[in-house]
Amino acid sequence: MATINAYQALDASEKEAKKDYIDRHSPFITVANNAKAGEKLPVNVRLGKDYSHPDDADHYIAEIKLFDGETLLASAALMTGVNGGQGAKGQAEVTFFVVPQKKMSLTAVAYCTKHGLWQSDPAVVLVG
Amino acid sequence: MATINAYQALDASEKEAKKDYIDRHSPFITVANNAKAGEKLPVNVRLGKDYSHPDDADHYIAEIKLFDGETLLASAALMTGVNGGQGAKGQAEVTFFVVPQKKMSLTAVAYCTKHGLWQSDPAVVLVG
Amino acid sequence: MATINAYQALDASEKEAKKDYIDRHSPFITVANNAKAGEKLPVNVRLGKDYSHPDDADHYIAEIKLFDGETLLASAALMTGVNGGQGAKGQAEVTFFVVPQKKMSLTAVAYCTKHGLWQSDPAVVLVG
Amino acid sequence: MATINAYQALDASEKEAKKDYIDRHSPFITVANNAKAGEKLPVNVRLGKDYSHPDDADHYIAEIKLFDGETLLASAALMTGVNGGQGAKGQAEVTFFVVPQKKMSLTAVAYCTKHGLWQSDPAVVLVG
Repeated sequence: MATINAYQALDASEKEAKKDYIDRHSPFITVANNAKAGEKLPVNVRLGKDYSHPDDADHYIAEIKLFDGETLLASAALMTGVNGGQGAKGQAEVTFFVVPQKKMSLTAVAYCTKHGLWQSDPAVVLVG
Repeated sequence: MATINAYQALDASEKEAKKDYIDRHSPFITVANNAKAGEKLPVNVRLGKDYSHPDDADHYIAEIKLFDGETLLASAALMTGVNGGQGAKGQAEVTFFVVPQKKMSLTAVAYCTKHGLWQSDPAVVLVG
Repeated sequence: MATINAYQALDASEKEAKKDYIDRHSPFITVANNAKAGEKLPVNVRLGKDYSHPDDADHYIAEIKLFDGETLLASAALMTGVNGGQGAKGQAEVTFFVVPQKKMSLTAVAYCTKHGLWQSDPAVVLVG
Repeated sequence: MATINAYQALDASEKEAKKDYIDRHSPFITVANNAKAGEKLPVNVRLGKDYSHPDDADHYIAEIKLFDGETLLASAALMTGVNGGQGAKGQAEVTFFVVPQKKMSLTAVAYCTKHGLWQSDPAVVLVG
């Protein structure tokens, strides 16, 4: 079964034991907490806060998707090599731009070609 | 949070009560149970066994992905209108072709623009 | 500049000299010449008629798109390994299903990670 | 046949006559002219310099791809509504992040669901 791994589903000891592994697979959203309805809002998604992920041909971050609740907003497909290629480590990253109309609860889902789907913490954006 | 709905996670009464809704959102895999290593194998994925899904501009099946365990094999993006367009209902469908090397446990994940992610039952393919 | 290579743009001597190279990068569409409006129609796209393409991590067919004229109908993204993986050669293939309403002029565009975009001959489908 | 429209292929009078139409379909790349090998580089792509494109369910910018020469680096798929939705106009935009190793010649290709594929001017990045 395809499952979506989520950082917040892990307990404290798991998080500590696998800190590097979990961090570099987890998408982190950076976005303003408040936005204006009808105005463009940048939403940055980066994989790894403190650690970085390999960018090898057989092991790389291939996809980053942005959801508002259950609704897909945008999706980025990355080819291997974009983060430095063979032997390099990098933090897969993309900035999407959305024009919200009302409150959003954003989550990002990333896909690692070896370790499957990973989900960010939700980021709530109030829209006034 | 983005979650993947799964047909088999529902109990019998839920399945009965929402039969149409669940059926038309669930991907169904058709594939041989046995395959030869190194030989091409068609894997058909269709949404809805008995029911069919709208293909309206604001409500359609936009994506069908095929996984082997946690590993993405292939992905199809469908534009609205491909299944008949405004007012029509259809069964979103795609046939992927994979060349397996060993036993696979396939699942398909589909995305409905109104009702989010849905997962098929797993289909095991023995490879000899 | 990104350009779309097309089999039919080449002259006879080029086609002969690079027969293998061109054939294995060219998408070939198989579809009925006549279809019924509102009925589901399979459209098969395969890369290579007589030759087959490597499926190595640094050299594989990553995308197959289907257009009706200038309009995108559907797109398939293939991960490396789907056609046999390291050292194997295969014919990347997908079958899309479309429900036409009127005459279509289909072309397929494929993307090779080393040799760019390649376009099929158009396939006209009369719809009655 | 699928073709890629390009701003620079048009002559001056065409550009003047269809200024709005061409501008809002053309991707514009913003990137530094010089980059350091192995360091992350943001590449912004925006559709429309002076004009903006509708974001209606039947007419929106669905895809933005970034190429280095003939090589695909990354691709963004946008769902309708991301730029404001029904009745709104917006400038579809995404920032990719790439880690270059050598000189790049970037082009962006965007897809409008009504008016097909459009290509940016190339942006050369010297990498030292």
